[in-house]
Amino acid sequence: MTTVGFIGLGAMGTPMAWNLDDAGFDVVVYNRTTDGEQPFAEAGVSVADSPKHLTRRSDVVCLMVSDGDAVGEVLERDLGVLDGLDEATTVVQMSTIAYEETVAAAELVAAAGGRFVDAPVSGTVGPAREGTLVGLVGGDEAAVEAVRPVLEAMCDPVVHCGDVGQGTNMKLFVNLLLGNAMNAFAEALVFGRANGLDVADMRTVVENGGLHCPLFAGKGVAIADGDFEARFPVDYQYKDLSLALARAGDVGVPLSQTAAAREAFSAARARGYGDEDIAAVVKPLEEVADVRVRED
Amino acid sequence: MTTVGFIGLGAMGTPMAWNLDDAGFDVVVYNRTTDGEQPFAEAGVSVADSPKHLTRRSDVVCLMVSDGDAVGEVLERDLGVLDGLDEATTVVQMSTIAYEETVAAAELVAAAGGRFVDAPVSGTVGPAREGTLVGLVGGDEAAVEAVRPVLEAMCDPVVHCGDVGQGTNMKLFVNLLLGNAMNAFAEALVFGRANGLDVADMRTVVENGGLHCPLFAGKGVAIADGDFEARFPVDYQYKDLSLALARAGDVGVPLSQTAAAREAFSAARARGYGDEDIAAVVKPLEEVADVRVRED
Amino acid sequence: MTTVGFIGLGAMGTPMAWNLDDAGFDVVVYNRTTDGEQPFAEAGVSVADSPKHLTRRSDVVCLMVSDGDAVGEVLERDLGVLDGLDEATTVVQMSTIAYEETVAAAELVAAAGGRFVDAPVSGTVGPAREGTLVGLVGGDEAAVEAVRPVLEAMCDPVVHCGDVGQGTNMKLFVNLLLGNAMNAFAEALVFGRANGLDVADMRTVVENGGLHCPLFAGKGVAIADGDFEARFPVDYQYKDLSLALARAGDVGVPLSQTAAAREAFSAARARGYGDEDIAAVVKPLEEVADVRVRED
Amino acid sequence: MTTVGFIGLGAMGTPMAWNLDDAGFDVVVYNRTTDGEQPFAEAGVSVADSPKHLTRRSDVVCLMVSDGDAVGEVLERDLGVLDGLDEATTVVQMSTIAYEETVAAAELVAAAGGRFVDAPVSGTVGPAREGTLVGLVGGDEAAVEAVRPVLEAMCDPVVHCGDVGQGTNMKLFVNLLLGNAMNAFAEALVFGRANGLDVADMRTVVENGGLHCPLFAGKGVAIADGDFEARFPVDYQYKDLSLALARAGDVGVPLSQTAAAREAFSAARARGYGDEDIAAVVKPLEEVADVRVRED
Repeated sequence: MTTVGFIGLGAMGTPMAWNLDDAGFDVVVYNRTTDGEQPFAEAGVSVADSPKHLTRRSDVVCLMVSDGDAVGEVLERDLGVLDGLDEATTVVQMSTIAYEETVAAAELVAAAGGRFVDAPVSGTVGPAREGTLVGLVGGDEAAVEAVRPVLEAMCDPVVHCGDVGQGTNMKLFVNLLLGNAMNAFAEALVFGRANGLDVADMRTVVENGGLHCPLFAGKGVAIADGDFEARFPVDYQYKDLSLALARAGDVGVPLSQTAAAREAFSAARARGYGDEDIAAVVKPLEEVADVRVRED
Repeated sequence: MTTVGFIGLGAMGTPMAWNLDDAGFDVVVYNRTTDGEQPFAEAGVSVADSPKHLTRRSDVVCLMVSDGDAVGEVLERDLGVLDGLDEATTVVQMSTIAYEETVAAAELVAAAGGRFVDAPVSGTVGPAREGTLVGLVGGDEAAVEAVRPVLEAMCDPVVHCGDVGQGTNMKLFVNLLLGNAMNAFAEALVFGRANGLDVADMRTVVENGGLHCPLFAGKGVAIADGDFEARFPVDYQYKDLSLALARAGDVGVPLSQTAAAREAFSAARARGYGDEDIAAVVKPLEEVADVRVRED
Repeated sequence: MTTVGFIGLGAMGTPMAWNLDDAGFDVVVYNRTTDGEQPFAEAGVSVADSPKHLTRRSDVVCLMVSDGDAVGEVLERDLGVLDGLDEATTVVQMSTIAYEETVAAAELVAAAGGRFVDAPVSGTVGPAREGTLVGLVGGDEAAVEAVRPVLEAMCDPVVHCGDVGQGTNMKLFVNLLLGNAMNAFAEALVFGRANGLDVADMRTVVENGGLHCPLFAGKGVAIADGDFEARFPVDYQYKDLSLALARAGDVGVPLSQTAAAREAFSAARARGYGDEDIAAVVKPLEEVADVRVRED
Repeated sequence: MTTVGFIGLGAMGTPMAWNLDDAGFDVVVYNRTTDGEQPFAEAGVSVADSPKHLTRRSDVVCLMVSDGDAVGEVLERDLGVLDGLDEATTVVQMSTIAYEETVAAAELVAAAGGRFVDAPVSGTVGPAREGTLVGLVGGDEAAVEAVRPVLEAMCDPVVHCGDVGQGTNMKLFVNLLLGNAMNAFAEALVFGRANGLDVADMRTVVENGGLHCPLFAGKGVAIADGDFEARFPVDYQYKDLSLALARAGDVGVPLSQTAAAREAFSAARARGYGDEDIAAVVKPLEEVADVRVRED
């Protein structure tokens, strides 16, 4: 039976690890702080005391940590993943990090003798629980096929996007689109409200047209209700737009609308909404225009 | 039986007028050029020789012409709508025009003794044929209810957005969102392509996430196929974003992302794509980045 | 001796008219409200009781009113300029209006038998007093040369930019640049202040480099002192950027940075600073970033 | 006599080092490649064979290299600056690098026992030759005063902007303003040209108004002449705007106009003009609008 190590038991990682367990894999978990591990320990799932020991026991090691620095640390620290690697182990890097960080991590893993698959995911906590994250996978065919059952326990669909780094690029693609769409919706709603339109009417119109999508349906309700609890926080959206713009510059694509979107999320951070949901990008604009987009 | 006059037999107006005929209304049509009228005449539908004569015979007069100048001309010209109005007639203005033009048209109609309903529609030729345009209606309750059966022959749903002008404001709201979304998709696709992602993979990822919507599904195929035949042309999207930004300025809402979107459509016009579909907003960016977003 | 009629005795028009008087022209003035005329009447300058009567007495009629609607009204109203024109009269239109409005005014004047020169000015109240406005002149060679002495009483230099409308286009060119530069300075100052830099140091650095110009020198002092009394108000800058963007769209030039600048001035208007000096464009950004750019 | 080591003999560093020599300092130079050192060796200036040996002999070590990576390399490599430091040595870091890189370099130097002053410069090759660069200095009072004579050999004025890092922040401030101003000028010129205005007339108007500055005077001539030889290349301006936007995000200042400017320079890079002067930012816009801003 395949043993899967899972490092990073945050809001996303926790349900992903449970899905691996539910799918019948032999799971071993590790988190930098102990709180995340507790429910797993109580349920009888193995808990490793270091990334190295987790890696020693695993065929596949999934990383789902906060950023590129955390990936580097988990790989390179004393008792880190690199210390425990052998040629039978595949590291599946699922965190959202920069393209260069992905390539660097792949090189570290290869140098240490292991295999590497780039597999960030698109989706929030709901799809993480339901196993319907979109898996955005980069790596050579053989390595990807070898870990496909593991990925399919967490993701549906699993999209093989190309070589190492292409999962990361696809993640930037989709979150670039997300940030633009979210802020477009915010601009449109404040525009409509300042013109005296009802929020409910605006939602009805969007839901009956070519732009009907889960994002606008969900965020329309959330904004109307004043519910800004983070599914995907402003700070992360800002980070992803920054990564996308840096990458766009590297490959020669000027993105003036995306640049405007990024500054809108920067305004939300400046106003103190960095920890709130991306829907809170509407707030600085509400403040400037002195209107509120709430259900009457 | 209610007699409905329909002025403006273009790509949108023609199927809308047929839907009125199919719904059993006594229809009379008028077009500034004769080509549009021919199929109606052949099918036995009444054709008026002037807006005045059409109005004389109608309980409800629908206007579906190209812009605010055309609305003004049809109302005020010799043998125009105003000449034929009486207090039993309701003018239903369905063209996309500016807020101030809507208010001005309403005042002209009221001064001439008629009733006025503001009813631009959201949707392209497909929904126009199927009678599933979203009707965005502004006017007083009694006037709107009186023409509701007429609107329902062409639209589903019919959304009553407020007083005269609010239909127009809702149209600007939805087309502002549309322009932002279309250009966001264009920026994302060129970004992805410049990074070596497959168009088919990008479409799969979007269609399995929170941004899955008819717009991205349809324009994704169109761009991949290199099909830029206009459903909704760049020139019209540019006009609507311009109207929305002018209105936003009037009501105190700065829209920096929408402003960036407008300039992207301006670039498409500058490059000669004004008559092509809004999907052609991708082309200037393809040219700058020297990549093509086409199916491999 | 040449008789010069001057219509529009606001903050700019008043010193311009005095300069004509000082230069020895026979001057006759008219203002829509009587306050502006009083000092001229007291000094023995002729005051006309209508644009028509002013025009009847004048060889050259200068217009310096608030906007294109005011130009139209002064020309076309009862007892307007057109009523008083003959072929020996030249109308010199100096207000900042749209290109189309300039062309329309020229056609009205030509139809009424007069000659027309387009001559908006660049500069604020100080240069208006000193006669050092930059005159931006459009019209045929003969007409421009005929009124050059009149223009030189108010302007130095007088720049002949081309045919009718080119003065207006040059005015949009320079005010487009002005709006961008002012908002760039605002963004830079708030950036610096949020990083803990002294305002005085920032001003010193700018004044010793390639960007040293009267605008930054003057606005740097004004902002540091919290002096936002209007030399050139936010509302007018917003209007000029809007005119420039509309014109840019018409001639096929996408201007993404100028579009961002316009929305910054829109934010200043939304926050209630429309009547303040363009330097007040710094205020909404100070509010978002929660810093103040003031001398310590 | 004070011995000054100078590392980095590029287009800027070479004249700066000569100015130190002219001012009577005992100068020793080092460059990573030997071409830069040759003229110094021929003139009898000392050339060190490593940063370590240069540092051993110097009281003050100036760094003027290409970017943050180069600074790190020169400090930390085998036979690097850190190897040669003692408590009597002050490292004066003059390259344009990120704020975080400045702080990191300061910490490395302090840990190795030396003193650190942050001193990027504003100005191009001309002022570098004339000794009139603007010195933007960060560091504690005593350290800055100690190296002031060295800085004054290269810079006039020398502006002490605060603690370590504030020189870098001031550099970002001024280059942020520069990038906005340059692209504003480009947008304005293309706008004017598309409207049929003469380049010479546009230059005359700018040079007689509130925006008259060395930048517009110089770049106006360069663009009119089609001279895009790099004084300050597009790639560097793009890098500086990227650094400024990243820093702005960190300190909570959304900069939507600067973001638009950055994408304009990104377009210039995408089109292959990265090595040309910042004036080449006009070229992609000329291409889209299909006009050329050249003297007739």
